[in-house]
This record gives sequence, structure tokens and C-alpha cells, in this order.
Amino acid sequence: MSIQHTVVFRLIHAPGSEEEREFLETGRRTLTQIPGVTDFAVRRQVSPKSDLRHQFTMVFADEDAYDAYNAHPAHVDFVARRWVPEVAAFQEYDFSN
Amino acid sequence: MSIQHTVVFRLIHAPGSEEEREFLETGRRTLTQIPGVTDFAVRRQVSPKSDLRHQFTMVFADEDAYDAYNAHPAHVDFVARRWVPEVAAFQEYDFSN
Repeated sequence: MSIQHTVVFRLIHAPGSEEEREFLETGRRTLTQIPGVTDFAVRRQVSPKSDLRHQFTMVFADEDAYDAYNAHPAHVDFVARRWVPEVAAFQEYDFSN
Repeated sequence: MSIQHTVVFRLIHAPGSEEEREFLETGRRTLTQIPGVTDFAVRRQVSPKSDLRHQFTMVFADEDAYDAYNAHPAHVDFVARRWVPEVAAFQEYDFSN
């Protein structure tokens, strides 16, 4: 059963800044190169009922593909080098139909 | 520009209960009858990093369609009669590409 993995987040960078653009683009480029990641998208969260402003979403064919992504060095490195220092707040949700 | 409106939530009902099934089915039946609601789905939230367990998701063609949905009597009535008494916690997010 496929799994849509999502994370909605707010950056420490100013909205519309070059730092924001570069973070989102690097996230896209880095994460889409990891095997098993499909249907990747960067989306804007626009409801005023949440102060989180971006979403990364991707689909894995199964739990094994999701586990492999989590353990992949490119993912672990992105989290350590970029996510932790540049993300002010986030929430993960995964969906399965 | 289309808007995906989502709400992720936890019910007061026991997981797998008849009350849960009936709430989700009534939500689907009620909300899909409102003009402007497209691509409606009920989804399971399966990440252990959130204690919210269900999601309603729908797509509106534009802000006017979304506003009309919010004000529609069938939506207002569902919120008052079912959502408020039966939903223990929730978070809304809206996405626009």
C-alpha cells in the first residue's frame, strides 16, 4: 500500500527571500534523487489557521521504500546540514488510503 | 488558482468503531453534496509523529468556491451538529501550488 509522506514547515528565512528559495530548491534537488521518492512536490500552505508556510510531499510505494529513504545518507545529511538549522517549526503527516 | 483544503483530525470515538465509520461516511456524504467541492477524499493519517488519525481533503477551483463552501448551510450545519461535539482535535492546512 502506497504512503504519502508529508511535512509542513516554516523556515527561519524571510518569506520571499533568496535563502528561502535556495532551501526549497536544494530540498527538491536532494530528496528527489533518493531512490523510491515519487510524486515529489513543494507546496505553499496558505491557510491563516496555521503559521507553517511550506510543504514537502512525496509518495513511496511501500514501507520498505519509506524506510530506505529515511536511512539514506542524502536524507540524513540534508536533515543535519539544512533542516535542523533552517527550519523553525514543522509537523509530519503520512497518509495511506 | 485551485486550492486544496485539508483538515486532519482525531475523533472522540474508538478507532474502528461504528461511530467512527458513521461519522466519516456522513462527512463524505454531506460535504460532497456542496457545490464547488471536488476531489473529496477521506484518508488515514498513519505517522506516529501525530496523534491525528483522519483527513478530509477537497479541492476548490478558486477562493470564491471555497468561500461559498464555508458559508453553505450544509457545511455550517455539519460543523455545529457533528464536528464540534465529535472531533477531539484538528488542524487545517490549505495548499496552493
